[in-house]
Amino acid sequence: MTAAVFRWVDPPAGPAIELLDQTRLPRAEVVVTCADVPSLIDAIARLAVRGAPLLGIAGAFGVALAAARGDDVAAAAEAISAARPTAVNLAWGAGLALDAYLRARPAGDFLAAGKRPYEAALEQARAIADADRLACRQMAGHGLALVPEGARILTHCNTGALVTAGEGTAFGLVMAAHRAGRLAMLWIDETRPLLQGARLTAYEASLAGLPHRVLADCAAASLMAAGQVDLVAVGADRIAADGSVANKIGTYSLAVLARHHRVPFLVVAPMSTVDFCTKDGRSIVIEERAPDEVTSLAGQPIAPAGSGAYNPAFDVTPPELVTAIVTERGVAHPVTPGSLRVLGADA
Amino acid sequence: MTAAVFRWVDPPAGPAIELLDQTRLPRAEVVVTCADVPSLIDAIARLAVRGAPLLGIAGAFGVALAAARGDDVAAAAEAISAARPTAVNLAWGAGLALDAYLRARPAGDFLAAGKRPYEAALEQARAIADADRLACRQMAGHGLALVPEGARILTHCNTGALVTAGEGTAFGLVMAAHRAGRLAMLWIDETRPLLQGARLTAYEASLAGLPHRVLADCAAASLMAAGQVDLVAVGADRIAADGSVANKIGTYSLAVLARHHRVPFLVVAPMSTVDFCTKDGRSIVIEERAPDEVTSLAGQPIAPAGSGAYNPAFDVTPPELVTAIVTERGVAHPVTPGSLRVLGADA
Repeated sequence: MTAAVFRWVDPPAGPAIELLDQTRLPRAEVVVTCADVPSLIDAIARLAVRGAPLLGIAGAFGVALAAARGDDVAAAAEAISAARPTAVNLAWGAGLALDAYLRARPAGDFLAAGKRPYEAALEQARAIADADRLACRQMAGHGLALVPEGARILTHCNTGALVTAGEGTAFGLVMAAHRAGRLAMLWIDETRPLLQGARLTAYEASLAGLPHRVLADCAAASLMAAGQVDLVAVGADRIAADGSVANKIGTYSLAVLARHHRVPFLVVAPMSTVDFCTKDGRSIVIEERAPDEVTSLAGQPIAPAGSGAYNPAFDVTPPELVTAIVTERGVAHPVTPGSLRVLGADA
Repeated sequence: MTAAVFRWVDPPAGPAIELLDQTRLPRAEVVVTCADVPSLIDAIARLAVRGAPLLGIAGAFGVALAAARGDDVAAAAEAISAARPTAVNLAWGAGLALDAYLRARPAGDFLAAGKRPYEAALEQARAIADADRLACRQMAGHGLALVPEGARILTHCNTGALVTAGEGTAFGLVMAAHRAGRLAMLWIDETRPLLQGARLTAYEASLAGLPHRVLADCAAASLMAAGQVDLVAVGADRIAADGSVANKIGTYSLAVLARHHRVPFLVVAPMSTVDFCTKDGRSIVIEERAPDEVTSLAGQPIAPAGSGAYNPAFDVTPPELVTAIVTERGVAHPVTPGSLRVLGADA
């Protein structure tokens, strides 16, 4: 990539957020400038910016943007948090930046030091990005112990540098395996309906020179039956307190298939994805997106005009199908409320 | 449909075969005229005509076409049989028509009655089509006993009037369930990479006025987990003697998912699909198709130029995952070499 995935622009050119429009990849690297919160929310809703960790970063910078513009910051944080319902990181990032802003506003250190309160939100946003970059390295380090020599890893959706401040969650682990000489093949589910695997993960794999091949999502089972998959590694959009994992639609399908074929199924996600306030999988709100994401492609209809579609953006994998959850704080294995609580204990 | 799916054209306008180009549906009803065997083989290879039962019919009419043209009929039968490797019906139909032609040629009844030998091949081809039409009705009759009231049926690929001389195999059963007032919903897997579900099954469902919705293949698991699927019904391209079922890629995935969710998994296929000469699933040759079926869509690339793809056209479902095989001669349940042999005994 020549363009930055996500970039804050200071005044006087800003305040603004520049982001790489992920809906246009891999065909074009188009940078979108969001000079206000509604345009950022639009970019989030139409998936120009996406992926749980990056949504956390985007949420925080969005609050800083509102503050820098002199908008109603609390209202902006609420609107950003509601832009998409499933990834918990969005509300988490927006909430942290709002807290920092509110703490700085009365007369605090920032004012004393000649800074404006929006800069407190901005520092918090930058701290979230820095922490995410570090978390990517730590997750890869913890996860590498679970990757065998000559590993053929199957992944779903996109979890790399496009959605984190570092090398990625599951994709960061794949990169570490590659550097350690352990990656024989990265199998990439194309990830219908929006093809984040074929479009984005294959793009990142190409840039990094990884051995990789794309497949139709429904071909993963026959690949497993042929003994061609040693490990499944995916990210997460929200992990409930019981270890249930909401992630891109098709993840649960892979988890069932992996169990049937006795293939380990790893979820790689930062602790910011774990929502201890969501009790279990049933409590996770699943975003249902427009039917035309399924019934048309690149603006062309692929189904008859009158045919509707079932189009949930995510599914929920129960903890008993997850071999381990790899976080920056260590590995939860087996996945239980207890093993997750231990990792989150002094977070 | 206003155009016929498959039609023989007699001399003097022919001899020729007219067929509806299924690669253009649902956007356009384009009729392709095959005036010789190479053009028919091309239509078969590029899936303009497709689906196991229709391939049987096409194979037989193709031999009649070669005979009517005065071509080398045995060579034509062999070339047609090799046009695609997995569906057994293709070679079966071509072989029957070749036999009829060879028997008629020496000086038999056809010559005595003033007919030409190609007409024997043509009569055999018409008999195959008539038998297939009847088989569709019989399969639907046998299968209906397995469909509960208010059934929500999930299907994959396309198995209707576009691929048979009747209402279809699995789709014929769905139509019978609809007429019996038992169909609450037909869930249609879009069936990547070539989208036969979204393009063709949704088209047939729309024409028939069935309640239906399309879904990304990888969303079927969450639909089953939500208790929204009562039955999976699919067709078959080749059934081995042990009951292993080769069918469109993704079928095996559904079978594993159905087992995990305790949903009955039905295969609906005529006895011509059962190949007693193929011992088991491992003996079935699986066609691997071009990577660009996965990496591009409607002529547009969806993955980076350097990314390859894994693209088998079919997968193999072992008999232990198939609840029952519904044929025109009755139902094999459980699916064992014995239960299949009984159905095939006096075939």
